[in-house]
Order: sequence, then structure tokens, then C-alpha cells
Amino acid sequence: MSKRVVILTGGVGGAKLVLGLMQIMPAERITAIVNTGDDFEHLGLAISPDLDTLLYTLSGKANAAQGWGRDGESWQFMDALKSLGGEDWFLLGDGDMALHVLRTRLLATGNPLSAVTARFAKAWGVDIAMLPMTDDPVATHLTTDEGDLPFQHYFVARRCAPKVQAIRFEGADHASPAPGVLEAIAEADAILIAPSNPWLSVDPLLAVPGIRTALETAKAPIVAVSPIVGGQAVKGPTAKLMSELGLGITNTSIAAHYNGVIDGLLVDMRDGDEDLSLSHMVTDTLMQTLDDRARVAQAALDLAARLAS
Amino acid sequence: MSKRVVILTGGVGGAKLVLGLMQIMPAERITAIVNTGDDFEHLGLAISPDLDTLLYTLSGKANAAQGWGRDGESWQFMDALKSLGGEDWFLLGDGDMALHVLRTRLLATGNPLSAVTARFAKAWGVDIAMLPMTDDPVATHLTTDEGDLPFQHYFVARRCAPKVQAIRFEGADHASPAPGVLEAIAEADAILIAPSNPWLSVDPLLAVPGIRTALETAKAPIVAVSPIVGGQAVKGPTAKLMSELGLGITNTSIAAHYNGVIDGLLVDMRDGDEDLSLSHMVTDTLMQTLDDRARVAQAALDLAARLAS
Repeated sequence: MSKRVVILTGGVGGAKLVLGLMQIMPAERITAIVNTGDDFEHLGLAISPDLDTLLYTLSGKANAAQGWGRDGESWQFMDALKSLGGEDWFLLGDGDMALHVLRTRLLATGNPLSAVTARFAKAWGVDIAMLPMTDDPVATHLTTDEGDLPFQHYFVARRCAPKVQAIRFEGADHASPAPGVLEAIAEADAILIAPSNPWLSVDPLLAVPGIRTALETAKAPIVAVSPIVGGQAVKGPTAKLMSELGLGITNTSIAAHYNGVIDGLLVDMRDGDEDLSLSHMVTDTLMQTLDDRARVAQAALDLAARLAS
Repeated sequence: MSKRVVILTGGVGGAKLVLGLMQIMPAERITAIVNTGDDFEHLGLAISPDLDTLLYTLSGKANAAQGWGRDGESWQFMDALKSLGGEDWFLLGDGDMALHVLRTRLLATGNPLSAVTARFAKAWGVDIAMLPMTDDPVATHLTTDEGDLPFQHYFVARRCAPKVQAIRFEGADHASPAPGVLEAIAEADAILIAPSNPWLSVDPLLAVPGIRTALETAKAPIVAVSPIVGGQAVKGPTAKLMSELGLGITNTSIAAHYNGVIDGLLVDMRDGDEDLSLSHMVTDTLMQTLDDRARVAQAALDLAARLAS
């Protein structure tokens, strides 16, 4: 019987690694625990950006070139919304609206987010277990030089321009892990942390008290794939954020950040000369093709296997 | 100064007559009081079919060939919704969604339907006063050989196939006219009833107690444009419904139905040989072109002027 793998993940970068895992092992043995700190309500709709990115990526519907949303998307809703004077800073594609409208409806009629997510995954033939980190509301907020900003205002409306001083996850203290999260962590043979933004996409997961405890007591080795490639972040605001937080853009910073949680770090070959006290393995971690994704996933599992033995 | 005209209206047929009025008089002197008995909540969205048909028709966005919805509409939302197993019996176009999402949001944050409607009309350059009959919930229900059916289930899901035994307007007894409705009726120089379905589209308006009283005491003559053309209804279930209610498909039936409310009836020339005790005028009431609409509107105003003198 093949091993059970749990992966903690945010959106785009994490989705690539999950897709890689699906190339090298049975989907049914994979559990993705997904950040919901980016979730927010917009125009009365419940929006879960990271869950949706996984759904689109794993079901083959993602717009890979754009990095978010659906392939072949149209924009009549946004055009009409603008003509009516509606808020237009957050783009909602016509097809994308189906997830938001149906999720909002299902949540309003008493279904937890985990059940809604499972239903969507099943409808689109996504066979991994895709779990939100929690069914409770958690909201990432940033303290910046422009004041307090909810995540999407910082990320989308302000395009990560404000300087970040601190990050907090409102509601996390009182959030419980979604059904299945703790069991999956306890029963896993390997636990991966995707190369998502450690501060914005992974920390919300670690801020849910039950999840951090489960990771600390898990029997499986925990391996993070570093988001640093050649002294830069592949995508998004990771490098800028690290500078603003006074950190070097190095794997030493990543290892220190995950100290006490991870057992090993998969680092990119361009950064292989860095001196790390933590167990690590060096490979090409850039994931441009599907083969790349499978190869990086395999390397992460290989490191986990080495740490387990 | 030109006269003030009030028109009580449902959706498609009524929108044509309002558009006709706009060709022959200043839009600012027209008040349309619109049926909201067809309104319903679907997928958590507040949908107002007759208000929307007027908005689309009067702003030049309507799909005239189809008879409902927007011109050039796309359907990615419905396709994605179906793929997720969402309810798909009621078609929601991508552009159309903007009205529903924004209206739902504005209603949820405390704006009455009348204010939302005025905002939409203004945004799209519709200069008539467009008023919902009421800001209170009123829901048309039909007693049929298939049991009790909410209006949209009868009209859309069952395509008017069930035999109708009775019609009721839930909530109408306790509904108040929307702001401006009673004033418009009291101050009008002519009041028209559009050739909308008298039982399904106009009766909800008359079922709002304050509106019926205002019509009974209005100083202006009240003229209905008959929905009967050549012994048939132009569109929709009017003729079938009249048969099921045991009525002849005649202007005598229409006049009897509006007895006590109207002062005159504009009838189609194909039905001109019918013997009516009510004041009436005969013309070609088919509204296929914009010129037709202006001509029918003018004829209705002419009959009102004759009754006023």
C-alpha cells in the first residue's frame, strides 16, 4: 500500500506541488490542508481564493498563464457590475461566479465550508481529500504603513505596495481544525509544506492551535519546500515581505521561520551553497512544467523518506 | 407643461408600452409602477424579473428576439453552476447576474427595493420614475392541478403547463405601496394599465390595498390596454389561464375583470366588433416596431383625454 501524504498549502505555488504529487501517487492517498485566511466576503459572496485555485488547478480548469482564475473566462458580469456602479477592484469571472454563488448559498443553509469544498471537488473529479484548514472564520490582516489592511485589500486592491510591519490572523485563536485535518496529520507517512508564502499562506494554518499541536506530535517527518529560488521568491510578495520584516531572503530565514515545525527543507540548487543547520536536500525546485512538478514532489517525498528512516 | 402619466405594468408587454410612451412625451413625466409579485429568491439572490425587463428594455439592453434577458448575453455562470450540481431550471446570464448580485447586496445592507431600482435606472440612463409596487415582499402563488406553485415554478420550471384553479398574492394584504406610488397616482393626468397579464402581472398591484384605493379616488381617467388581440393573447399564458378560470377570451372578460378600476379600454381592431358597455377605443394594438409602440401609447393617451374631457 502506498504512503499517505499530507500537504499544507496556499494557492498557486501549492497547487502546482499538489498536482505534482498526483502524478506520482494515487490521489486518494493525498490530503491537502488549505489556507482560508485569504477568504473574505465580497458583494455578499463568500470567496475562498486558495481553495478555488486548487479546485481549478487540480481539475484542469486553471488559467496557467494568468496564475489565477479559470481558463477561457469571460467578464460580462464585471462589465455589467461596473455599469451599475458596483465595486470592481476584485475581479470575478463569469464562470468563477458559480463557485462563489453556490458556496455562499450552501454556507447560508448550514453546510460547513469543508462539506461545500468536498462537494465541489467531487463534482469536478478531484480525488484528493481537499480540506479547508478550518470551518471557522479566520481573516488575515496586515499592519502596514497605510494602516490595517484586510488581506485582499493589501494583495489585490493595493497590489502588495504597502510596507508590512506585522501580520495577524483574526479568529485563528478560537478556530478548530476542519473535520479530518487532525486525523490526516496523525496518520500521514509524510507531511509537506508547499512553497507558498510562509508568512501569508502557511502561517494562518499554523495559527490554528490544534494544527500546530498535531504537527508537533505527528509521527511523520515534515518537509517544507522552500519558496526561495536563486535568492528571490518565484512569485508574489514573499521577497518584498521578508525585506520589510527585516529578514534576509535566504533559506536560513525560511528554516528559522519553520523552526520547531519542520524536520527538513527542500532548497533550490541555485541556493545550494547556503550553510543550513537543518536537514535539507538540494534540487531544481522551479515548477514550470508538469514533469517539474512531479520531480519536485518526488524530491520532497525522498527527503521525507530519508528523515523517516 | 406636458401631462403626467402613470402606467401600471408587468414585464415584457408593459415594457413595450412604456418604451412607446417615451417616444411621445418627456421621460421625466412618466412613472411606471411595476409588479413585484414575480420576485423570488434563487440561489440566495434577490431576483425581480419585471423590474429587470423594464431596465433592460428602456436602456436598450434587452434581447428583443428572446423576449427576456440581455442582448449578447453569455452563459458561463450557468455552465459552471451545472458542472457543480447547482439548480439550473432558472437561467441566469453572466451579465444579468450583476443586477441580482448587486441588488441582493444592497437589500441586505438595508436599502429598500425602490432605492435600489432608482439607482439602477439612474446608472443606465433610464429617466422615467420606475417604482416597484411595494418595498414589502409579495409572492404570487398559483393553486393548480399539480398543487401549490410559486410563480416562477409555474412560469419557468413548469412552463405554464399546470391547470390553474386560483391565484393568490402572499403578503399583499400587509404590503404598503413603495414611496412615491400613491403620490404619482394622485397627481397623474392619465393612468394606463399595460397589456400585461391581468391576473398574474396586474392583479398583484391591485392587491396592494393602498394602490387600489388610490386608483379608485384618482382624479385621472384610467385606461387599460387590452392584452387580447384577435381573440388570443399576444404572448404568455393569458389565454390559457382565462380558459382555465372559465372565462371567454374576450374584451368583455377583461372589462369585467377591471370593473371598478378602469374608465376605458383600448381594444385591438381585430376584436372591434365586440359589444362593450365600457368606454373604449379601437386601434391596432400589436406592438412589433418602435413606431407601433408609440402609436399604441398615443391611442391610450387619446382615450384617456377623451374620458377626461
